[in-house]
Amino acid sequence: MSLAGTFRMRKGGELAAAQIAYESWGMLDADRGNAVLLFTGLSPSSHVCSSVADPAPGWWEFMVGPGRPIDTERYFVICVNSLGSCFGSTGPASVDSSTGKRYGVKFPELCIEDIAVAGHKVVAALGIERLFAVIGASMGGMSALAYAVQFPDTAERLVVISSAAKATAFALAIRSLQREIIRADPVWQQGHYGDEEPLQGMRLARKLGIISYRSAEELQQRFGHLPIGGGVNRDTAFGMAYEVEAYLDYNARRFAGGFDANCYLYLSRAMDLFDLSEHGGCSTAALSGTGLGSALVIGVTTDVLFPLFQQQDLAEGLRMAGCQVEFSTLNSVHGHDSFLIDHERFAPVVAGFFRKS
Amino acid sequence: MSLAGTFRMRKGGELAAAQIAYESWGMLDADRGNAVLLFTGLSPSSHVCSSVADPAPGWWEFMVGPGRPIDTERYFVICVNSLGSCFGSTGPASVDSSTGKRYGVKFPELCIEDIAVAGHKVVAALGIERLFAVIGASMGGMSALAYAVQFPDTAERLVVISSAAKATAFALAIRSLQREIIRADPVWQQGHYGDEEPLQGMRLARKLGIISYRSAEELQQRFGHLPIGGGVNRDTAFGMAYEVEAYLDYNARRFAGGFDANCYLYLSRAMDLFDLSEHGGCSTAALSGTGLGSALVIGVTTDVLFPLFQQQDLAEGLRMAGCQVEFSTLNSVHGHDSFLIDHERFAPVVAGFFRKS
Repeated sequence: MSLAGTFRMRKGGELAAAQIAYESWGMLDADRGNAVLLFTGLSPSSHVCSSVADPAPGWWEFMVGPGRPIDTERYFVICVNSLGSCFGSTGPASVDSSTGKRYGVKFPELCIEDIAVAGHKVVAALGIERLFAVIGASMGGMSALAYAVQFPDTAERLVVISSAAKATAFALAIRSLQREIIRADPVWQQGHYGDEEPLQGMRLARKLGIISYRSAEELQQRFGHLPIGGGVNRDTAFGMAYEVEAYLDYNARRFAGGFDANCYLYLSRAMDLFDLSEHGGCSTAALSGTGLGSALVIGVTTDVLFPLFQQQDLAEGLRMAGCQVEFSTLNSVHGHDSFLIDHERFAPVVAGFFRKS
Repeated sequence: MSLAGTFRMRKGGELAAAQIAYESWGMLDADRGNAVLLFTGLSPSSHVCSSVADPAPGWWEFMVGPGRPIDTERYFVICVNSLGSCFGSTGPASVDSSTGKRYGVKFPELCIEDIAVAGHKVVAALGIERLFAVIGASMGGMSALAYAVQFPDTAERLVVISSAAKATAFALAIRSLQREIIRADPVWQQGHYGDEEPLQGMRLARKLGIISYRSAEELQQRFGHLPIGGGVNRDTAFGMAYEVEAYLDYNARRFAGGFDANCYLYLSRAMDLFDLSEHGGCSTAALSGTGLGSALVIGVTTDVLFPLFQQQDLAEGLRMAGCQVEFSTLNSVHGHDSFLIDHERFAPVVAGFFRKS
């Protein structure tokens, strides 16, 4: 949808005629009380699950759909493509109508709060005053938190998975290095690349991403010290020799080319900049005015990017703010990515929270 | 010293007139029974501690020297610069006398076993038949293990710190990505760079190295979400904004330029290739023929690159092989690098092992 008027960005700058892509599933109740808003992590589109209109499997197919934990037969589920992303919403890869060229690095600085505001505009345009729940994992959890603090009393429930009130130094370090790797690709050209994209930089940054998204335990269980089957190609100096290298390479190649490099840089930086305490002196103060009735916070023991202590801090902050909190620690081996993979552990916890509601 | 004859590499190829740089401290006993051989990690030179000849502080100054845990008043301590490195020993940065040019990527494939053999040649040339101890941390621990299995009954004691019988999948992934980052630097030129070195690639690879050498806990304690003092320079798109980024940048710049990129690639790959079980079907079998009397194995709780379970495996393997093993778990916050930093925890353990001897 096109956002009416000018979209003012939190850190300055504005967007004329910004677009926000979203998909929805299920039916809105007569009293408009069954809407669930879902924010995504850094890289997905709004296609969270398959639909009649788009039968392709979504990125969270096991979680959202008819009869699934977030049941589209009961709830009207909305998923927005984040502002700044490249799957239909306005971002650095979009054409700036004032110049006829892509924004690129001329795009204004992006904050998680801007993503939340853009999501709220979709909700408001649909005539929904109060959400049944706002949900997000990873960066999406930050967006959900930013939604709750910026729009008090507009959400009954919050679900935050493997997210944080602000990044750890380790997460800042990983993302900073990813961005620098992309910027070091000569094709990036200070952000002014044309149709040829900085694929090598994106591929290497994605490898680092995967290493941080998965756990060392999982890599060890799956690949150990296993050499690549069929022997190493010794013609290529320092080419791949071990299965774990082939795994990273396959997955990084699948990603690069499908995501705009400048969008990646902006969204990555937005995660760094997020600090919930800016909305109230500390996280608890920020959360105390949200009017949230209940919340589900889920953390994973093997997550190194958004470690468990950050989920504990969030749960504690929400409790102190007067919210009824369910805190769930899941012992998944898949690290930060567990919510995308570990159907068995995640589905019952989310389903239980919605059933109780 | 110049190695006599031709040096045959384990994976094929040979070196004519190879050099091995070493330093020594203390006096060799009349019966030549007090020699301690020290192998280094990937990046240091042989200058483990200061001496009259070279008063500059060494890389393990608190551990080696007169009256220190490895006491140069009691022991004749030898530290070798690894074969393949660039601080006096022959490696990819050395000139191949047959061509008059640097070896570069024409250097034969390097193994940890080659480093150990080169170290043994130094020991033999000094007329030492049996070492009081062979010691190494990180890659140096692998070299010490390779020494013990390749030269049975030539060492009484083994000290292995934060090392492994073979790399984890996580360590393979990190090192593979570091090498690919260096190779992606256009200045690298498939290894055929001239005087201009691939500094950007080395800098980025080093940042990833530091992230893996230190622990997330330490970064969090030291830097958290602290913005760079004096404010961010917003002129540079995606420039540094947080203290942890400045820390990585400062340290990466100190490293790049001081270490040859091709040497780095060869040594990094050598660590990947190492597998102690090649010397006997399994690690225990490999260790059972070494004739080691006793061993000290030290692991650190926060080490993600050579995690604690690998030290436990080594200690167990040595015990099964009939060696008297002291296994020490240190709760340092500095991750893999702890042995270089945590004087208070490491010095007493090493000193105690040598005192008992």
